Amino acid sequence: MKNIEGGVCAAQGFSAQGVHCGIRKNTSKNDLALIVSETPCSAAAVYTTNLVKGAPLIVTKEHLKNGVAQAVICNSGNANTCNADGIEIAEKMSDLTAQALNLNADDIVVASTGVIGQPLSVEPIANALPDLAQGLNPDGSHEAALGIMTTDTIAKEIAVEFTLGGKTCRIGGIAKGSGMIHPNMATMLVFLTSDVAIAPEMLQKALSGDIQNTFNMISIDGDTSTNDMVVILANGMAGNPTITADGEDFATFMKALNTVTVGLCRMIAGDGEGATKLLECIVSGASDEMTAKTVAKSVICSSLLKAAMFGADANWGRVLCAIGYSGADVDVTKIDVSFKSREGEILVCKDGAGVDFSEEIAKEILLEKEIDILVELNSGDHTAAAWGCDLTYDYVKINGDYRT
Amino acid sequence: MKNIEGGVCAAQGFSAQGVHCGIRKNTSKNDLALIVSETPCSAAAVYTTNLVKGAPLIVTKEHLKNGVAQAVICNSGNANTCNADGIEIAEKMSDLTAQALNLNADDIVVASTGVIGQPLSVEPIANALPDLAQGLNPDGSHEAALGIMTTDTIAKEIAVEFTLGGKTCRIGGIAKGSGMIHPNMATMLVFLTSDVAIAPEMLQKALSGDIQNTFNMISIDGDTSTNDMVVILANGMAGNPTITADGEDFATFMKALNTVTVGLCRMIAGDGEGATKLLECIVSGASDEMTAKTVAKSVICSSLLKAAMFGADANWGRVLCAIGYSGADVDVTKIDVSFKSREGEILVCKDGAGVDFSEEIAKEILLEKEIDILVELNSGDHTAAAWGCDLTYDYVKINGDYRT
Repeated sequence: MKNIEGGVCAAQGFSAQGVHCGIRKNTSKNDLALIVSETPCSAAAVYTTNLVKGAPLIVTKEHLKNGVAQAVICNSGNANTCNADGIEIAEKMSDLTAQALNLNADDIVVASTGVIGQPLSVEPIANALPDLAQGLNPDGSHEAALGIMTTDTIAKEIAVEFTLGGKTCRIGGIAKGSGMIHPNMATMLVFLTSDVAIAPEMLQKALSGDIQNTFNMISIDGDTSTNDMVVILANGMAGNPTITADGEDFATFMKALNTVTVGLCRMIAGDGEGATKLLECIVSGASDEMTAKTVAKSVICSSLLKAAMFGADANWGRVLCAIGYSGADVDVTKIDVSFKSREGEILVCKDGAGVDFSEEIAKEILLEKEIDILVELNSGDHTAAAWGCDLTYDYVKINGDYRT
Repeated sequence: MKNIEGGVCAAQGFSAQGVHCGIRKNTSKNDLALIVSETPCSAAAVYTTNLVKGAPLIVTKEHLKNGVAQAVICNSGNANTCNADGIEIAEKMSDLTAQALNLNADDIVVASTGVIGQPLSVEPIANALPDLAQGLNPDGSHEAALGIMTTDTIAKEIAVEFTLGGKTCRIGGIAKGSGMIHPNMATMLVFLTSDVAIAPEMLQKALSGDIQNTFNMISIDGDTSTNDMVVILANGMAGNPTITADGEDFATFMKALNTVTVGLCRMIAGDGEGATKLLECIVSGASDEMTAKTVAKSVICSSLLKAAMFGADANWGRVLCAIGYSGADVDVTKIDVSFKSREGEILVCKDGAGVDFSEEIAKEILLEKEIDILVELNSGDHTAAAWGCDLTYDYVKINGDYRT
């Protein structure tokens, strides 16, 4: 398996585009994205568990009932959530996209991201769609990735190439992260594409399984969004024998998918709102997988630890504290904690108590951009990883007045 | 019932004092507090549910097994948590206090607050105790309140006077709040005193019942501390008929206790780390009490809403979002949301969707220091309140480098 260019268009038969249509005031920022496959795709998705659901999710869920889709339309700048006419508008977006592409409306995935509770006008989208469809091309991943961003500072694209049944296959994707990220069964917006031939139910199985270890293990701010959605389209153009059951091919596909999703998780966490650092908490020695995950997620969610990481302060007591209130059944007196980055690794806590360590070396390690928080529970052989970011002045700034 | 002066010394027979003993570098800040009753007290306590527990909690729990205590010793600047010799040190603190006061060690409540995982030297405490005991006096509440503060900016004291069986009674208290506050069954440090005559088991019943609606409904930052403790001492000097069962007197006592604890909750939330505003989420119309509490707590915990409140931004979508992921079973299409302060009240969401409102008026309301977030679920008649604060640059600053 190797990393390749092309993002959401890396797989055969996919094209994309993004434009500024006018939902955002800032005309230099794309606010509408379109992704299309030449042929109908097996489609699978997972959605937020928030009871408050964006209208686009309800419409998309309906469209994906038959496990088939061919295009994704997504706007940023407005979540189309908590609006009385939300579903009507989402259906309109879908209809307009279908018209522009000469497809059926129920083959369209609709998504929106941005402010909650402000009416979304379909006007700018309607006006932009013909040009957007016209501009579709296999190099369009980056413009599409820009089109789904809110307060993200970096466009998030990734793709890998691998082999199935002697055929070269690809999975790629784009994501929008930033804030209101604490996924539960689903996550922010992630659009994945592949040219693998795979039955819709196996595609759903792959996606639903994968997110438990990837997107459900990220947290930026503990707030589970109303508009979270991960969608994958697979058009089968690679020509591999169609995956219809578990087995070696499915395992290979899962591994490729996981490479893409972990890559996107790291990008999302590292570009969390206001973030200056990517944090990864790696838990080992757990008695079972759920314990490992619970501990990793709790550490990555601690506001106090996140603020300490911003300050490059090796305040490991906050790691222990977060483990202690996580709800996981652990023996505190067995826990070791280390901090690690490309500057090195330092043990700061052994058997649940502090050890002598050099504050200077710890500082050097923590001043890096990517920090691993290593938690060894010494109680078994299960592991888990979770991703997050530091808590900074800019998080407060961005969210103190997001709407204006 | 009326509010009175005197804080933790308002009740008959209690004296207190606070000094700088040298645990903190800053010599202008008290770091040791002592509270003593003239006579043995019924004593009750609740503790953090964090698996990582400060050593003082373990020692105090042992001492309160018989339901009797007579004094409280508490240091700030060091939590005495995650230290190999923690229990030994906490017992030493207790022994030294008992010696200085000529009491039994098992009548001493020991508490510590501050940094986790740094060895606590008993030396400065031993040196300061004789003078501290010497300085005990009925006007000492404020010095003691100063002695238990960490990053708190305001000393937290309160007291009320009421009548039981024809006798004038009092309950008072001091608290330390600030950060690492997301209580679960217990909370930060709160020391309450009363001259009411009440059996230890009824005192525990009163306290355990009360905290469910008070200290367990505060959140500053979602981090449940390792050293949370609420202790109440009642010495019976008011001379009322001893409360030994449910009834009118117990109800009166509960009401007085609740006045004190709600007062402290509001002080703790309003003085959360870096806070500029006290937030109170008042949920009404819930189908049951647990739903009301879950919704109120979720709203008050949302980092995004907290940041919006800092920016005086009426971003009500974040209220809906927090309700939606709370786990409570609510009908989103019935929810109304208003913001209220002494500047007025404004409806921003009706039936789960936005309404037209004046952003200028909303801004004026939200620029105040105390904001109520009113959530009407329109599904029953249960209510709940939760307290929190805004998320500010200073929270990040304080916690970015707390140890240095």
